[in-house]
Amino acid sequence: MIMRRPLPRAFGFDVFGTVVDWRGGVIRDVARFLADMGRGDIDPAEFADAWRMRYLAAMAAYAASARGFVTLDILHHEMLEDTLRRFGLDPASLDPQAVSDLNRAWHRLDPWPDAVAGIARLKTRYPVVTLSNGNIAMMLNMARRSSLPWDALLGAEVSRAYKPDPEAYLCTAEILGLAPQDLCLVSSHHADLAAARACGLATAFIARPLEFGGAPAPDASAAQDWDWSCNGIDELADIIGGPSAPDPEC
Amino acid sequence: MIMRRPLPRAFGFDVFGTVVDWRGGVIRDVARFLADMGRGDIDPAEFADAWRMRYLAAMAAYAASARGFVTLDILHHEMLEDTLRRFGLDPASLDPQAVSDLNRAWHRLDPWPDAVAGIARLKTRYPVVTLSNGNIAMMLNMARRSSLPWDALLGAEVSRAYKPDPEAYLCTAEILGLAPQDLCLVSSHHADLAAARACGLATAFIARPLEFGGAPAPDASAAQDWDWSCNGIDELADIIGGPSAPDPEC
Repeated sequence: MIMRRPLPRAFGFDVFGTVVDWRGGVIRDVARFLADMGRGDIDPAEFADAWRMRYLAAMAAYAASARGFVTLDILHHEMLEDTLRRFGLDPASLDPQAVSDLNRAWHRLDPWPDAVAGIARLKTRYPVVTLSNGNIAMMLNMARRSSLPWDALLGAEVSRAYKPDPEAYLCTAEILGLAPQDLCLVSSHHADLAAARACGLATAFIARPLEFGGAPAPDASAAQDWDWSCNGIDELADIIGGPSAPDPEC
Repeated sequence: MIMRRPLPRAFGFDVFGTVVDWRGGVIRDVARFLADMGRGDIDPAEFADAWRMRYLAAMAAYAASARGFVTLDILHHEMLEDTLRRFGLDPASLDPQAVSDLNRAWHRLDPWPDAVAGIARLKTRYPVVTLSNGNIAMMLNMARRSSLPWDALLGAEVSRAYKPDPEAYLCTAEILGLAPQDLCLVSSHHADLAAARACGLATAFIARPLEFGGAPAPDASAAQDWDWSCNGIDELADIIGGPSAPDPEC
């Protein structure tokens, strides 16, 4: 293993896709919601993908607007209403509590099998923080549900800028008291890593071939030769040299 | 024990004084700094108290100014330069690195003996976050140094408002997705609790008779009948009904 650059001083993690399986969790909760609505005819996977696919357009619309900062929970809710209409469900005719609860599917996502142990190992040597577009309550609920041991929940709500806006990366480094090159973004998304690299951050790619249910990632063409490239967060911890995971029986 | 009000849904902690012994830690680092300067004639406790006593005035000056948000690290540095002058040391004549390092004494404070276990017990049932005027890097360094298991680092840098500004309390509740009454401020400072109560938060007082080295707290006259009043965070965990601390040998 050739070390291409000095080790960073902290790791900032993308969360949706990199740490948690958003698609599996959203499909699970959409299936329950549709069953409760008596709409078992709609494919939950198709619904989940349609919801997520509105993300890039929602981000672009937000960036182009003069809106003050709004959380991802709010943007998700708007995207959900659009998605419901797309499948012939009128949000105004539905129980608002049921729609809000479905929107919170994004707070109830399960980590990939290597994530909790890998992050815990990195944490023994480096600060590990979220660098996510998710809001703080979303990150907190997800972390408490799965014992993700973050040192701090940073990202869009703290920097008041959504990735890939350079401010999202640079503000996070500044808050941590670090130069950009001392912060490493860990992400399964090439476009995210490309934006971080353009700001001077170090970059670690985590392959998540199942993020889109086995379909190719939409940003596959943005791949570069990242500083580190791994098949899991545990593998990143191996490379970076943290101690091995403690025996779970102890 | 009479339960005066419904249990809150999360706890937000003041940190300096409530969780960590700022005075002991600052005295320790000031003593080393003064010895290095060959100024063993200056009393480190008197220096530490003079530094901290500038805090209220610095907060008032900041609130009255049109300055954009600046971190407590920066305000501490300004207060430190004032304090150095007060003791006849010209900051401009000193090694900037040594002064910066002394300013980071506030990142290296030890928790009171009950704090880590008490917070860990509360965390098994409730989200526990900082609600501090300290900035995120300061809270993060302190937490990593002492294994303080915060779920999130909130407070002034996230809300961009310093306590006792109502925005500091209300913004923290909003970020957590909670109504003010569902968030409980835990603090050893009556003035802090009074401001939180005025915003509708629940209040838990932790007595820290040694915070000022045994001298009376400057805000003793602001005492009220708080929702909970305890002699330590472990006692708060007892009252709130979290499970007992795990055996440290396990």
